[in-house]
Amino acid sequence: MAKRRSVFYVSDRTGITAEVVGHSVVTQFPQFLFSQTTIPFVDSPERARAVVERLDQQADRDGARPVVFSTLIDPSVKDVLRSARALFIDCLDSSLTTLEGELGVKASHTVGSSHSIEDNLAYHERIEAVNFSLAHDDGLGVSDFGRADVILVGVSRSGKTPTSLYMAMQFGVRAANYPLTPEDLSRESLPPQLLLQRSKLYGMTIDPERLQQIRNERRPGSEYADIGNCQREIRSAERLMRQDRIPMINTTKKSIEEIATIILHETKLERHGY
Amino acid sequence: MAKRRSVFYVSDRTGITAEVVGHSVVTQFPQFLFSQTTIPFVDSPERARAVVERLDQQADRDGARPVVFSTLIDPSVKDVLRSARALFIDCLDSSLTTLEGELGVKASHTVGSSHSIEDNLAYHERIEAVNFSLAHDDGLGVSDFGRADVILVGVSRSGKTPTSLYMAMQFGVRAANYPLTPEDLSRESLPPQLLLQRSKLYGMTIDPERLQQIRNERRPGSEYADIGNCQREIRSAERLMRQDRIPMINTTKKSIEEIATIILHETKLERHGY
Repeated sequence: MAKRRSVFYVSDRTGITAEVVGHSVVTQFPQFLFSQTTIPFVDSPERARAVVERLDQQADRDGARPVVFSTLIDPSVKDVLRSARALFIDCLDSSLTTLEGELGVKASHTVGSSHSIEDNLAYHERIEAVNFSLAHDDGLGVSDFGRADVILVGVSRSGKTPTSLYMAMQFGVRAANYPLTPEDLSRESLPPQLLLQRSKLYGMTIDPERLQQIRNERRPGSEYADIGNCQREIRSAERLMRQDRIPMINTTKKSIEEIATIILHETKLERHGY
Repeated sequence: MAKRRSVFYVSDRTGITAEVVGHSVVTQFPQFLFSQTTIPFVDSPERARAVVERLDQQADRDGARPVVFSTLIDPSVKDVLRSARALFIDCLDSSLTTLEGELGVKASHTVGSSHSIEDNLAYHERIEAVNFSLAHDDGLGVSDFGRADVILVGVSRSGKTPTSLYMAMQFGVRAANYPLTPEDLSRESLPPQLLLQRSKLYGMTIDPERLQQIRNERRPGSEYADIGNCQREIRSAERLMRQDRIPMINTTKKSIEEIATIILHETKLERHGY
């Protein structure tokens, strides 16, 4: 049986950084089962004291001290937290110290402006990209595809919508998407309105068995979800895309994050802000 | 004038972790202007050598060595990268070592499964949540609001849509949203179909000046974007929400990440997976 351990992500802001670092680290210990909790907005010694109490209770319950991944900046808050019966891991400390040495200046040690709205222009572009992707989801607004940075193309349920939203939200990229309908698939070539934007097209494909599974959850027992139909649709879609040398990604075993990163990387699209 | 420095996020996978850590660190040096580049999928010594070449060229161009935030795991790949004329910052190394000591086992040092699809159940819930949020965006599917985890309520352009998509994508939370129309706002209380789900409602409000700005970009010079109209709509919306003691957040100076984290934190909704 896997050993259990409690992990807390503690931050003075959203906790996103602590979560991301901590998650990358704990996944390196597959023999353990980690129960993970985020405690955001710990921005005063009082709040830190409440967290210490919670950590100490957890230590009693578990019979082992919990692991804390912290991105706290304020030393007075950090000091309180260090008094808990917990393993305290500072996610940023050593990187900050190294960079201070390189740049020859002290870090500002103000509470993080990461994940805040401070970089207004990049933030604005991300929100605009989300609005664009929503307005150009599922083949909407095809006449306006010229404004897109990338147009994801594939059969229904191949992963286009979540990928385009993720690309918009994280990278500020205006990602449209177009579902190849059975009618499109019966033709000799991709729809003319897509071919007008050929250089922006990116194909998404998927294994027929996985597609069947996903479609069957939506419409159990339907022709839409039938394995033969899924195979035929995918075969036609891949043929159409190969014919026009549209780059293609198989999404079966990839997360949205991975798919989006691969497409961004391969298209060399410019992202807006970090 | 701000000093410039090139920063690279290098990873054997998506680069998300390196970006998040690096971004948190560099924002602590506001006197510098950092040009940021992500290089994902560096998973072989050959690829690492190509990165070294790129870094060395950058060092020549800048007249200063670039800063590399790395989450590379494979020592043979890492060693190649360390040979570049760059400051090498290992984002995970010290946290990994600390946790190894605590747990009494060695890290697996396999290429990260963070951001991958491996945790299938949690991943599936996130995708389902995105589909739910899309199908219940902008007041769609109100009759099905009972299945929502949270329902964001506010006037048009107060930030509901990107927030609900972010909550779905990042936390696997089924977030619906409902725009209060001028007709809704003229009534004595919130729409009855919303009040049926009162415990799930969360209000979003915004400063009238900011709302005017956002609406004016969409429909310049319209009554919709008129400052008086924005003020009246917001006043009515806040009155309706206060009347039913709906919790409310002012989104004016907050990023989607911050808004989503605050709502998750205050509603104590359970998130699905990390």
